[in-house]
Amino acid sequence: MSATIHRLGQKPEPSLEPMLQLVAHDLNLVNAVILDRMQSNIPLIPELAGHLIAGGGKRMRPMLTLASSQLLGYSGTRHHRLAAAVEFIHTATLLHDDVVDSSDLRRGKRTANIIWGNPASVLVGDFLFSRSFELMVEDGSLKVLKILSNASAVIAEGEVNQLTAVRRLDISEERYLDIIGAKTAALFAAACRIAAVVAERSEGEEAALDAYGRNLGIAFQLVDDAIDYVSDASTMGKDAGDDFREGKMTLPVILAYARGDAAARGFWKEAISGRRVADADFAEAIALVRASRAVDDTLARARHYGQRAIDALAGFAPGAAKDAMVEAVEFAVARAY
Amino acid sequence: MSATIHRLGQKPEPSLEPMLQLVAHDLNLVNAVILDRMQSNIPLIPELAGHLIAGGGKRMRPMLTLASSQLLGYSGTRHHRLAAAVEFIHTATLLHDDVVDSSDLRRGKRTANIIWGNPASVLVGDFLFSRSFELMVEDGSLKVLKILSNASAVIAEGEVNQLTAVRRLDISEERYLDIIGAKTAALFAAACRIAAVVAERSEGEEAALDAYGRNLGIAFQLVDDAIDYVSDASTMGKDAGDDFREGKMTLPVILAYARGDAAARGFWKEAISGRRVADADFAEAIALVRASRAVDDTLARARHYGQRAIDALAGFAPGAAKDAMVEAVEFAVARAY
Repeated sequence: MSATIHRLGQKPEPSLEPMLQLVAHDLNLVNAVILDRMQSNIPLIPELAGHLIAGGGKRMRPMLTLASSQLLGYSGTRHHRLAAAVEFIHTATLLHDDVVDSSDLRRGKRTANIIWGNPASVLVGDFLFSRSFELMVEDGSLKVLKILSNASAVIAEGEVNQLTAVRRLDISEERYLDIIGAKTAALFAAACRIAAVVAERSEGEEAALDAYGRNLGIAFQLVDDAIDYVSDASTMGKDAGDDFREGKMTLPVILAYARGDAAARGFWKEAISGRRVADADFAEAIALVRASRAVDDTLARARHYGQRAIDALAGFAPGAAKDAMVEAVEFAVARAY
Repeated sequence: MSATIHRLGQKPEPSLEPMLQLVAHDLNLVNAVILDRMQSNIPLIPELAGHLIAGGGKRMRPMLTLASSQLLGYSGTRHHRLAAAVEFIHTATLLHDDVVDSSDLRRGKRTANIIWGNPASVLVGDFLFSRSFELMVEDGSLKVLKILSNASAVIAEGEVNQLTAVRRLDISEERYLDIIGAKTAALFAAACRIAAVVAERSEGEEAALDAYGRNLGIAFQLVDDAIDYVSDASTMGKDAGDDFREGKMTLPVILAYARGDAAARGFWKEAISGRRVADADFAEAIALVRASRAVDDTLARARHYGQRAIDALAGFAPGAAKDAMVEAVEFAVARAY
């Protein structure tokens, strides 16, 4: 007897639609918690938070908590509050990221730091972060609190790690994977794992959902980083070339530099140090990344982690939840094509 | 029969020394936790955090947790980890405050944002904040987690409230008290209250310690805000006149403006809007604040809250801990003389 084998790339046009439909009802309830708990007597707080929270985010992380809960057949309501807590942690991180990167565009909209300034973004981020812990405390599971407080510390470490890696061509693929494992994948993993805690399932099921989320998160970030070298702002909702201009050491650059000849390496040294960041330089960067197949192989790495995410679900019963979670991975790795 | 009555101002030269001696042994253990838990594989984190944590802070808030624990005769060790968590919340807040205020000097030293930049200060603040929750989760008390996550949210709200009050001469004393009650006094209150939780004492004793910390915190901030108009950087370890130049609406300004004649009000309008911030303008501000007795009365308000802090301790048994906590209030309100 063998279970259905899911292999990446079998679906011609994968979509997030099945997962959206799967969690639609729950997600409405999560959104109600989010709207309720971002309120404050200080009007700037809901105004600024609402800009980002209502600003077209996919709610990827809370959807993962909800889908994982359905995969486990959980029928309670605790996951709504916790999914909101996860989204608050993510939103706080985005607010602080945009300050750190001096970003002016996110999801095609002006960023909060541009509209309200860095101080307000820092402080409202802190507020949402505190509020997320209040939500967890209300839920009352020390295990969930441990998972999410640890994830939060790991995210901050990953962000600092990334900050100290900027404009440094000696950054290795291993260090890059450490960074995205922390800054992105840790929260994906935690969002999935807490569903198993709430549903009171075994350590093994907790670990499997953690692995699903972690590998999906890595794949997701790899594709995001590849997209920065293939698309324009209209596709992505952020400025293409942002990573390039900021001197961020993402895998496309790491591979293109490692595989480049002397001329290419000379170019990358100047570009990553910030001396060649004009549009023509970015065009040259894209050409070099393509010639070295660095984007192709970044996406191949993403498929590797995507396949691992799918395989991590092998032990769970087939059904709509599992199908949707598999297709979400397909969708995540197919975005750049 | 009547208990000893403690009234402010009876001690000629009050000092923090009795409290320092009371908690010296415990504070060493707290410092060991702090040093251990600010570590990370990312070297910038302990480097930056250590600059501030080792940088001459009084450890006022963890001392309050330790002194309150002794007041209650608590003989365990849980308060060491929790006092470290309180200090981490405070340190994270300071890092973010200095970014928000673009400060360049704290306790006479260059600030972390000046040395390492705003991005690093924001992210290391986030790390310490997450770490503080990890410490609380290790302790395992949901009640402590509730108190401190709520205090954190209130602090962030207070900071945003202060931000939106900057350069606005219509800010009232009531709004100012809301701001300092949130940004400063909430953590003083929580630091004291958690001692009663750890020592498993009654709600009444929890509330009494909360009131002691809250009133002390308000008094402490009132005196800090008065000092900005009476002293120089060498006394205070921060730039005198910082609040003035930033257009912060503190009580000395609120009172001086309310009591001022047309000329004085004209001056404050220009100054608080940022058009008169030269050294000569600051000298004029000090003269106006003195002439209107605004500093004197800010300090009188501080003594009012200081007396309330002392009276909140009335129900606790006399002894070295109580004496030290009373004298700490005397010290806090006497700093400006």
